[in-house]
Amino acid sequence: MNAQNFRLCEKLVSPAYVKQAEEARKSHETKIRILLEQRKWPEEGWEDGVIELMLDELALMDSNNFPGNCGVGEREARVVSKLVQQRHYRLGHGIGRSGDIAAIQPKAAGSSVLMKLTNSMVLDLLKITGVPNVKACFLVPMATGMSLVLCMLTLRQSRPKARYVIWPRIDQKSCFKSILTAGYEPVVIENKQVGDELQTDVEAIEQKINELGAENILCVLTTTSCFAPRIPDRLEEVAKLCSKYSVGHIVNNAYGVQSTKCMHLIHQASRVGRLDAFVQSTDKNLLVPVGGAIIAGFDITFIETVSKTYPGRASASPSIDVFITLLSLGQHGYKRLLAERKQLYKNMQEQLRKCAEKHGERLLDISHNPISMAISLKCETPVSNVTELGSMLFTRYVSGTRVVNCTETKEIGGHKFIGFGSHANSYPCAYLTAAAAIGVTQTDIDLFIKRLDKVMGKWKAPNVRNKVDTVSDDMD
Amino acid sequence: MNAQNFRLCEKLVSPAYVKQAEEARKSHETKIRILLEQRKWPEEGWEDGVIELMLDELALMDSNNFPGNCGVGEREARVVSKLVQQRHYRLGHGIGRSGDIAAIQPKAAGSSVLMKLTNSMVLDLLKITGVPNVKACFLVPMATGMSLVLCMLTLRQSRPKARYVIWPRIDQKSCFKSILTAGYEPVVIENKQVGDELQTDVEAIEQKINELGAENILCVLTTTSCFAPRIPDRLEEVAKLCSKYSVGHIVNNAYGVQSTKCMHLIHQASRVGRLDAFVQSTDKNLLVPVGGAIIAGFDITFIETVSKTYPGRASASPSIDVFITLLSLGQHGYKRLLAERKQLYKNMQEQLRKCAEKHGERLLDISHNPISMAISLKCETPVSNVTELGSMLFTRYVSGTRVVNCTETKEIGGHKFIGFGSHANSYPCAYLTAAAAIGVTQTDIDLFIKRLDKVMGKWKAPNVRNKVDTVSDDMD
Amino acid sequence: MNAQNFRLCEKLVSPAYVKQAEEARKSHETKIRILLEQRKWPEEGWEDGVIELMLDELALMDSNNFPGNCGVGEREARVVSKLVQQRHYRLGHGIGRSGDIAAIQPKAAGSSVLMKLTNSMVLDLLKITGVPNVKACFLVPMATGMSLVLCMLTLRQSRPKARYVIWPRIDQKSCFKSILTAGYEPVVIENKQVGDELQTDVEAIEQKINELGAENILCVLTTTSCFAPRIPDRLEEVAKLCSKYSVGHIVNNAYGVQSTKCMHLIHQASRVGRLDAFVQSTDKNLLVPVGGAIIAGFDITFIETVSKTYPGRASASPSIDVFITLLSLGQHGYKRLLAERKQLYKNMQEQLRKCAEKHGERLLDISHNPISMAISLKCETPVSNVTELGSMLFTRYVSGTRVVNCTETKEIGGHKFIGFGSHANSYPCAYLTAAAAIGVTQTDIDLFIKRLDKVMGKWKAPNVRNKVDTVSDDMD
Amino acid sequence: MNAQNFRLCEKLVSPAYVKQAEEARKSHETKIRILLEQRKWPEEGWEDGVIELMLDELALMDSNNFPGNCGVGEREARVVSKLVQQRHYRLGHGIGRSGDIAAIQPKAAGSSVLMKLTNSMVLDLLKITGVPNVKACFLVPMATGMSLVLCMLTLRQSRPKARYVIWPRIDQKSCFKSILTAGYEPVVIENKQVGDELQTDVEAIEQKINELGAENILCVLTTTSCFAPRIPDRLEEVAKLCSKYSVGHIVNNAYGVQSTKCMHLIHQASRVGRLDAFVQSTDKNLLVPVGGAIIAGFDITFIETVSKTYPGRASASPSIDVFITLLSLGQHGYKRLLAERKQLYKNMQEQLRKCAEKHGERLLDISHNPISMAISLKCETPVSNVTELGSMLFTRYVSGTRVVNCTETKEIGGHKFIGFGSHANSYPCAYLTAAAAIGVTQTDIDLFIKRLDKVMGKWKAPNVRNKVDTVSDDMD
Repeated sequence: MNAQNFRLCEKLVSPAYVKQAEEARKSHETKIRILLEQRKWPEEGWEDGVIELMLDELALMDSNNFPGNCGVGEREARVVSKLVQQRHYRLGHGIGRSGDIAAIQPKAAGSSVLMKLTNSMVLDLLKITGVPNVKACFLVPMATGMSLVLCMLTLRQSRPKARYVIWPRIDQKSCFKSILTAGYEPVVIENKQVGDELQTDVEAIEQKINELGAENILCVLTTTSCFAPRIPDRLEEVAKLCSKYSVGHIVNNAYGVQSTKCMHLIHQASRVGRLDAFVQSTDKNLLVPVGGAIIAGFDITFIETVSKTYPGRASASPSIDVFITLLSLGQHGYKRLLAERKQLYKNMQEQLRKCAEKHGERLLDISHNPISMAISLKCETPVSNVTELGSMLFTRYVSGTRVVNCTETKEIGGHKFIGFGSHANSYPCAYLTAAAAIGVTQTDIDLFIKRLDKVMGKWKAPNVRNKVDTVSDDMD
Repeated sequence: MNAQNFRLCEKLVSPAYVKQAEEARKSHETKIRILLEQRKWPEEGWEDGVIELMLDELALMDSNNFPGNCGVGEREARVVSKLVQQRHYRLGHGIGRSGDIAAIQPKAAGSSVLMKLTNSMVLDLLKITGVPNVKACFLVPMATGMSLVLCMLTLRQSRPKARYVIWPRIDQKSCFKSILTAGYEPVVIENKQVGDELQTDVEAIEQKINELGAENILCVLTTTSCFAPRIPDRLEEVAKLCSKYSVGHIVNNAYGVQSTKCMHLIHQASRVGRLDAFVQSTDKNLLVPVGGAIIAGFDITFIETVSKTYPGRASASPSIDVFITLLSLGQHGYKRLLAERKQLYKNMQEQLRKCAEKHGERLLDISHNPISMAISLKCETPVSNVTELGSMLFTRYVSGTRVVNCTETKEIGGHKFIGFGSHANSYPCAYLTAAAAIGVTQTDIDLFIKRLDKVMGKWKAPNVRNKVDTVSDDMD
Repeated sequence: MNAQNFRLCEKLVSPAYVKQAEEARKSHETKIRILLEQRKWPEEGWEDGVIELMLDELALMDSNNFPGNCGVGEREARVVSKLVQQRHYRLGHGIGRSGDIAAIQPKAAGSSVLMKLTNSMVLDLLKITGVPNVKACFLVPMATGMSLVLCMLTLRQSRPKARYVIWPRIDQKSCFKSILTAGYEPVVIENKQVGDELQTDVEAIEQKINELGAENILCVLTTTSCFAPRIPDRLEEVAKLCSKYSVGHIVNNAYGVQSTKCMHLIHQASRVGRLDAFVQSTDKNLLVPVGGAIIAGFDITFIETVSKTYPGRASASPSIDVFITLLSLGQHGYKRLLAERKQLYKNMQEQLRKCAEKHGERLLDISHNPISMAISLKCETPVSNVTELGSMLFTRYVSGTRVVNCTETKEIGGHKFIGFGSHANSYPCAYLTAAAAIGVTQTDIDLFIKRLDKVMGKWKAPNVRNKVDTVSDDMD
Repeated sequence: MNAQNFRLCEKLVSPAYVKQAEEARKSHETKIRILLEQRKWPEEGWEDGVIELMLDELALMDSNNFPGNCGVGEREARVVSKLVQQRHYRLGHGIGRSGDIAAIQPKAAGSSVLMKLTNSMVLDLLKITGVPNVKACFLVPMATGMSLVLCMLTLRQSRPKARYVIWPRIDQKSCFKSILTAGYEPVVIENKQVGDELQTDVEAIEQKINELGAENILCVLTTTSCFAPRIPDRLEEVAKLCSKYSVGHIVNNAYGVQSTKCMHLIHQASRVGRLDAFVQSTDKNLLVPVGGAIIAGFDITFIETVSKTYPGRASASPSIDVFITLLSLGQHGYKRLLAERKQLYKNMQEQLRKCAEKHGERLLDISHNPISMAISLKCETPVSNVTELGSMLFTRYVSGTRVVNCTETKEIGGHKFIGFGSHANSYPCAYLTAAAAIGVTQTDIDLFIKRLDKVMGKWKAPNVRNKVDTVSDDMD
């Protein structure tokens, strides 16, 4: 509705009412203008109606929605199913261009604007959540692991001789596999146990760099967010090493955006040392469906190079989800979610402590992990029984816990891991982890504790052992 | 509605009507049962209502939609925006698992079923369209180029010494960049001009293999679908070479599924020689939004290895789109689209020939390219004017044509291409290409010819030269 | 996207692409402007994307979508379910105002514009389909029957003494009941049989007017579209009578908009005599869900009085459906549907004739009914068996046929009808009707004939008699 | 997904996960079963996913969604626009049958089940909110006013001699017009002022009955929910009179379902006297878009007669909205909304009192109106200025207040009302009303008070007078 159309409306309904509507419309237009002008994440969330209007507008800027457009290319964003058309708001051209996933797509000005705005708001998000000096980022429609691959493949261009990636152990498959997929040999650095916590062995890293030769090392691949009893890596010290030896440094910040601690570590590391890129998942941090990752860094040129390393045009779907979600929440909405999470983390910890103690176990003391926590599972009984506990919870609709018996051995890509799942060769006890991640509710926690309490009772009673089906507890 | 519920309905409405509805329901259930049982692409398309019902059902099989589920993990498919929730049919868990994009996701049985069925129907699609002996495939939510990267990264595992990829020249950036991204050195094989056509120089490939040493070569990367005047590579002969020298062979079949010729080439190549994988785009062949590719091959183990090379869980969105589209069209609907395309290809060729001749140009004789065609642009006038023609068409809402002046030089990743865009160092004339790709309509073609006719007239009149803005004609 | 916002977009994507998009946008804006300016039904259909954009825009003009609106009334269009919100495009205020269903709603300028435009386009529809002199109309979210009640209640105001409604018999319940509901005594005029057809007995009407006294008669209630063997009433002659005796005249044109003949009758009647209002269903003529009727007439004041007779605000849902459908089809799309229907009517007639003759029956000669047709069912066998035929078709998924045995007696509101369903006391034979109504497809007809053929065979074989459940054939 | 299909899924994904999903599915199925079995409003709300699944299931029970259905009738629920189809969940047949809006529709078993369940849950709603002895009700897709017409037209059948409707004055147009539309002469009973409140003059009613003769009176039409300073009618006493004189009694309970007081009045009246029907709006009480009303009563036969008085099939849209909303909220959700409203009513009253006193006005003492409240507007200044205040609020996005100057005279349908808007000929002061209706939020109230405070300041300052556009304050 432009001014002219509002004037025409006045012939249909009273001018006073139309003016009122026009004022209201202007206030929506202003929001849109400010977004386009400043490309900042709005403080206040937008109404769904305005978000959908904007998506409709953007769609009309794409050539497939031009009136009288005739397409005689091989790729014209023709979508045959109306169901599919509608769920993508008639945006069909994806994002990027053959040579660069962050480039403008000539056939799709609207999709391109959406992509640019999303990346720009995401940059704001990273700044606000704790990395104020971040310089560039882009959303890529790939898993965190595959995004790490992309970062390593980009680093390769400037480190052609490198063969190794140094990796402080974190027992999560996709992270480890990303090294293999990128074509490098992972060099595992075992964690140090300090109290209940597993911490980065910085000295071992430095020793390894010296042993292998810095020029043979592509990068150190560190991790922030992780399952207890592991805690985030000592990023600052690793960054200093990487700077000292001119070795790349990539951070897997999977679900760390939701935690001030993780973000702060990245910020500090970037100030005192080298940190080429940090990668985070959109679904884990932004409450959207699985599908995207954010690749960010402090050197615009490097991040641009990463984006140019993705060959081809890509799905706009994760960008659309993030675009909608960021606008819908606004900064305020997101900050409220962060504050709630923090609160619930404490609550879960307290309840878990009590429940553990009731059953003769204890909450492990892992104060440096801001999201994940663990309780001991003393194992007078055979190993298999520990996994039973996981199955019992699973069949009672508790999802997301991990039961780790610390004795499993697993081979991944030719590498043998002892105590797989526990981030250590010999963690002293079996345990169960749970996380207070963004979006968790008080109801979730209360139900979890209630069911855990019941299940612990049954599980500790010897007669019910071995009666439940075993279900894998590895649900990445 | 199960039988019990239908019985209860009979207390609300007459049993005769309920029975009728139950019969109808059964017929839908039968469709669903047959799909689950045989995992084949249905002959007849399904009604949107049944497709949405099935998606709703699958969503309810995912843990995030379990009643009373409590999630205490870091990834629980919590989706905060209802708009986002709805556009994904409440499927939030993505597909795959940390180690394997084609693996079952324990938290998401429904999404997993959807992924398996989609991959299974896609396999059917490939068989039906001309590669009956294809053994395995999977849909990956990445661009074709990035999917080629994944294939090369997988091949690397068995060819650790390799440094080169032999590449019969095709002037399309993402394909070339995929080699660089994968970390290999591209070895460009120039095409041979035969009449107007540009064909694979098979002899030059063999010579290059000998020169570089087979063990140093990862693979030959061939192309089927491409812009005229290039024609699909001579896959059979290349496949024989790859077999003879034990060199990998990957085919970029970007939009070749829609062409019997391209598919037949793949089929034949697989029978007489080596062909490790062929990759095709979902949007270009299946009329869905940009976002996915299908990686397929003849050796189940190899294709499984590729799927295991993708680290992390990925977006289900492209799978959902393909699932909906395949069910909506059915084999019959798709075959009808293929038949129409074939017909329209001839029609476009005929109209283009006439239009060219009217303006003193000619349709190039490129009978071996089943999708793309070209007309000459005699260039008594300076080079810049050729691109003008592209701009003139672009501003008249003709999308997808390419105007190539054959004199452009471009550097990509350190490699210099003379005559970039024309697949050759010195193609004798400038030209304009257009494609009759799946989904094109008679109206598209008629409009195109009408506008081309007008524009050619203006363009040939010397006085209008140099007056239009130049717009890039490279719109991959 | 206003001009300012497009300029801002140019900082995000190349100006050339934005200009292209802006041009395209303008062409959409122009469509919207022309619609607002001329309020005419567009010749060409609109794309769904533009329709949804317009609905989104209109919704933002309603107070419930104003940013910062605070509602402290008893009716603020608060919609608690997001599902409901979305399916109504966030339009919640309905249409009209306490005193007038066609009035502007101050809280809802957008809904009001939508209502006005819809009514305006519907007026165009009536003009185009054959009543060029129609002066006013409005869409009311009620059934045709209830809309007839509203017309009669309005007429009452100027004819306070009237007690009777003269009604040429048409055996369709809701029409008859509308008279009772309005509080009048129906005076049934039996039809005359002429050949196979049942026609209006105009003489009997005049006689009745004289007998009862014109001032005691509210109106004659005639019918156009109806089931064969009845044909549309002789509107011209009835209109002349109504004019002569100053008696009201209301026409039930239920599904007559789709037929030039029915519309022509109305046009002619309005020119030569009196016709106060004619009422038609939206679902039957415009392929929308059941729910609305159009009340139209030749005297603006009278039609306005009808609209003011509806007390209260009403559902906008049928208006939204019609708005979308009219814009989506455009005049061209609708005319194409009309032309197809006409063609298919002939086709069905021909196939039905052949099928009837094959089984020893005949197509009744009812050339004046433009939509419905009938074949004889000779009944050597007992009456009950005729309805069996209907059931047999019903269970074979043939919907919409009517089997009439001409011997049923039914009492409705105290009035006894002999031969109910056949529009006559003693139609000479049982018969089956079918209709070629708008939206019917060749497939529908082919399936129908195929199944009818089978069923007739079975039904005529004496041994299968009495074996099927009886299902009502009256499915209004 | 039936058991067989779940078994087939087990061949695609691990049986343990499928079993989990099947268990979850069963729990949804159980909900559906219980709903069909008991037809009661569920205590707990349903997830959107389950609601949509059920709607999809119901749609598949309608003939237009039968596979292979061929329709050869005049009304086959063919919906041409996919947008329209989808927003109605592919339900197209509406509700009811030619003779009865609450009857089963043979072509639409699913829509019929939906209609029956909705009516059944609505009955529960009425019981729970305060009328436990209600016997029957149905949802009609018409405004409250038009529904009152329907009730009166039904009553007429048993009171053929009646000409009058006795109506305790309530200055709301549609209610008054409903009497005129039904064809009766309204007999206005002026209210008695008691303190600030306007109450029913029961004695005047009895006197009028005696004066006009009971057999000449169709009914007394009373009102519960209304704008202050009027309070709900004294239903008990009126009901006793109606019983004593055998006169009909219909109650306009427009937005009374949300108030225990209003519902209690109805309950009590039904126990001690006569109350034929009470009518309430769906949008005002159930937070759905405008469009439906609930007609309820204590005599099943009478309510059935009302439903049979609606001639024709009607829109299912309001039923779908209510179906979704009731299931989505559950009893608990709705009760929570009611509790919140009660709380906010007190809050608004308190804030309003303070704001009024600050500006030299007072909160009127109208303790018997449970929803609406009023503050005085002392009028040393001319009358026109009072309406200015309304305009000032309107342009500041405050919707729903009413400014009443008590001196307006209005003619409606030939009846002259002095002091229209104030329910009285000479209410002593001008005033402003506001309502704390269901769905109002604390934010709404805070914003309202803030803006009112500002506006009152400006309005009381003499220099700004007469500067704002006048906007109607009557926004029914």
